[in-house]
Amino acid sequence: MYSTLARVRCNGIVGRSLINQFSRNCCALPEPNGPTVKTVIPGPKTKQLVQEMSPIHNASTIQFFVDYDKSIGNYIVDVDGNCLLDIYTQISSVPLGYNHPDMLQVFKDDHNLKSLVNRPALGILPGSDWPAKLQSTLMSVAPKGLDMVTTMMCGSCSNENAYKAICMWYQKNRKGTSDFTQEEMESCMKNLPPGSPDLSILSFQGGFHGRTFGALTTTHSKYVHKIDVPSFDWPFASFPVYKYPLEENVAHNQAEDKKCLAEVEDLIEKYAKKGKPVAGIVVEPIQSEGGDNEASPEFFQELQRIAKRHKAALLIDEVQTGGGPTGKFWCHEHFNLDSPPDVVTFSKKMQLGGYYHNLDLRPAQGYRIFNTWMGDPGKLLLLEAVLNVVKRDNLLDRVNKAGAKLKSGLLAAEKEFPAILNSTRGRGTFLAVNAKDTKTRDEIVNRLRQKGIQSGGCGDIAIRFRPALIFTEKHADIFLDRFRQVLKEL
Amino acid sequence: MYSTLARVRCNGIVGRSLINQFSRNCCALPEPNGPTVKTVIPGPKTKQLVQEMSPIHNASTIQFFVDYDKSIGNYIVDVDGNCLLDIYTQISSVPLGYNHPDMLQVFKDDHNLKSLVNRPALGILPGSDWPAKLQSTLMSVAPKGLDMVTTMMCGSCSNENAYKAICMWYQKNRKGTSDFTQEEMESCMKNLPPGSPDLSILSFQGGFHGRTFGALTTTHSKYVHKIDVPSFDWPFASFPVYKYPLEENVAHNQAEDKKCLAEVEDLIEKYAKKGKPVAGIVVEPIQSEGGDNEASPEFFQELQRIAKRHKAALLIDEVQTGGGPTGKFWCHEHFNLDSPPDVVTFSKKMQLGGYYHNLDLRPAQGYRIFNTWMGDPGKLLLLEAVLNVVKRDNLLDRVNKAGAKLKSGLLAAEKEFPAILNSTRGRGTFLAVNAKDTKTRDEIVNRLRQKGIQSGGCGDIAIRFRPALIFTEKHADIFLDRFRQVLKEL
Repeated sequence: MYSTLARVRCNGIVGRSLINQFSRNCCALPEPNGPTVKTVIPGPKTKQLVQEMSPIHNASTIQFFVDYDKSIGNYIVDVDGNCLLDIYTQISSVPLGYNHPDMLQVFKDDHNLKSLVNRPALGILPGSDWPAKLQSTLMSVAPKGLDMVTTMMCGSCSNENAYKAICMWYQKNRKGTSDFTQEEMESCMKNLPPGSPDLSILSFQGGFHGRTFGALTTTHSKYVHKIDVPSFDWPFASFPVYKYPLEENVAHNQAEDKKCLAEVEDLIEKYAKKGKPVAGIVVEPIQSEGGDNEASPEFFQELQRIAKRHKAALLIDEVQTGGGPTGKFWCHEHFNLDSPPDVVTFSKKMQLGGYYHNLDLRPAQGYRIFNTWMGDPGKLLLLEAVLNVVKRDNLLDRVNKAGAKLKSGLLAAEKEFPAILNSTRGRGTFLAVNAKDTKTRDEIVNRLRQKGIQSGGCGDIAIRFRPALIFTEKHADIFLDRFRQVLKEL
Repeated sequence: MYSTLARVRCNGIVGRSLINQFSRNCCALPEPNGPTVKTVIPGPKTKQLVQEMSPIHNASTIQFFVDYDKSIGNYIVDVDGNCLLDIYTQISSVPLGYNHPDMLQVFKDDHNLKSLVNRPALGILPGSDWPAKLQSTLMSVAPKGLDMVTTMMCGSCSNENAYKAICMWYQKNRKGTSDFTQEEMESCMKNLPPGSPDLSILSFQGGFHGRTFGALTTTHSKYVHKIDVPSFDWPFASFPVYKYPLEENVAHNQAEDKKCLAEVEDLIEKYAKKGKPVAGIVVEPIQSEGGDNEASPEFFQELQRIAKRHKAALLIDEVQTGGGPTGKFWCHEHFNLDSPPDVVTFSKKMQLGGYYHNLDLRPAQGYRIFNTWMGDPGKLLLLEAVLNVVKRDNLLDRVNKAGAKLKSGLLAAEKEFPAILNSTRGRGTFLAVNAKDTKTRDEIVNRLRQKGIQSGGCGDIAIRFRPALIFTEKHADIFLDRFRQVLKEL
């Protein structure tokens, strides 16, 4: 049956009725039964398009051009007719795979279409159903204990605005009032204290929080992200570097936690003395660009206690981890924190950016956290479809099952190829494994592509797994088979 | 005829066939023949929705909730049934008014719908038609002499990324190479020079370039935008403060230009000595948030010469002025510059953000100007519809005609109410007039709303005009009539 569909797909003529039938009958999209590679990737048509694009837009990072009409479910189809199993999903931003019927339905609705086309300045003129939609979408999956949300557009602007909200909150607490002095109002217009106070946001080595000036100051993943760009003098601490398997390295890993937490506390004290007090700490639950570096629940619990002790806010950046791939909707739910984090930022799989918080983090005055669009109703409507499918199809269950299968396969591969692989780690399908060095990692990713697997690296030596939430054990098997072929060839 | 339509609209049952008929027959949307106000604004339904929204999202800046299904053309309809002539258009971001039939058609096309729903990471996996679409949309209206574009999402991230590109360009020129030293690669990871160099971007008092940390450092419009947020130590110069009418104040205004330009040059020298060289100058062609402050073509010509002399880039921020409202597609086309600016940023009416530039401003290495989404194909498709209509319906002509009518009406009002109004200024429909003080300005804007005109202020005392490109002389008449009523009541 699947091979028939595979052929049908290659001709790009899977019709709505067939899709509907499959959705109804087996909750599976009419995917091919496996990848098909017809050319070296990038193929000749991609190369032609890169030539076409280069004179008008940077095209140097393009992996291949995609036929999004033909891509389906977990499979991405390129312009040369290659059909790849996608476990990277547009840098972890595609929740339901390609052309999910529920997402294709959203704008068939006339009201939804008008909500998309008539894009409002949400901060001043939202549509009539905006409060109800916020409630039924973003608030329906709000991290426990966080009652409010502020909508944005992407991960960087979500973090930037969360940093601003944290600075405003910190100043309010420090001064004991939300009111401004004349001196503050005047000095901020000149970029000078006290109106523009010398506050800092503490981050971690290996962290990634975006690429605009504030966010980039807290990003420490790769030099190519940062070089030549001015930076604030803000502190950053070491992040634990664990040894795997975890159960055999308990003492080492606990010592790592302890060392890094002590460093955090030292830096907070040092920067307070320096006149640049730490208003907030930003941390990813898993450092997703920096190498899928994990830390223990105990690390995060203690980090929160340190933040509270020093009256700094704790911001958990769930831009890449949020939306289900770790097997819980938010990765920090795995940490059993004493109390909710002060801020949780999101984007990517959530379709639009933003941050969750409580009333204390909402500035007393309007127009302080503000921009023209403040999000996008069109994206919220897509999120609505995503969340409905996640709930209806129990996709978090599926993530946990597929993740368990994938992880045990990676551990087996590690055992079979100990000179090449190590340190399998992660939660749900949000997994990673290290190659012995950068060259080998890059070689594996490239060879996988040639065998029909679209994967990606992170950090210096990790291969990261970021399949869609509709990835199943069957897809894990397909991947593991190709992975083993590649490892044998090395 | 129009009054019939007005009644039809109030019932919200204008059908597609009627819209199509109107588009075909007279290039006008089935608008009402004027505003209708039924309640005090904000009305009871808006107040109810504000109550509903406040517990989950800041709602303190909401003017009213909108029925976007019923809004049409130049008219915005609120949830209480009030129908207002909109000359503010979502902070100047709506090019073709509400529910334009050409925009509603875009996602009826299956390929376009799939381009919207399957949102790619454009920097690595663009769709097959992305280069052709860039060419036929953004490049078809590229400022003369700028051959390339980098797509983004909003105004702030466009400016932030343009600042980064400018810093990279400046360092390349300073060092005579695009290569990195080991020391640069290592130091940037610690936010230290030479990898994170102490460069600056020079801006102007009264300027607005966004609200993320880098952009906000260059924003100097209102304290509420900036207070409590840390800032870079970057220089900012005075912007000319003109007297009107221009023809009667030539000497004063020329002296203003001269004074401000001298200040720019002084600051560049001062910051070079301070070890924070100016890599670029950012300026709006009209300071659009800071009060619709204009400067002469000669000011901009000389500013460009100063930038060149000091090897700094000139960035013209056309986020609010771009896309036609000044009667030319880009406002800086009015300036007759010696050569193209180095960078032009855009967003708002353009549906997505980005910046135009040349090869020299493109970093030699990939992944330096990069983020997950790098724009949005769904928004580019809407822009395609916008540009087609702008060309087909000669909307720049319409802007110039409607603008001339509106401006002469404002000048007449100034003459009739000299104690209240002064300093009518602007180009196309991108106009402003000052009230005698802030209180009066706010009073005028509020009373206008109650008379069916949705307008907005900027700076301390200006009323700004930001109608859609489909605003006509007829709409100008309607506005001027209500405006005169308000002025008489004051």
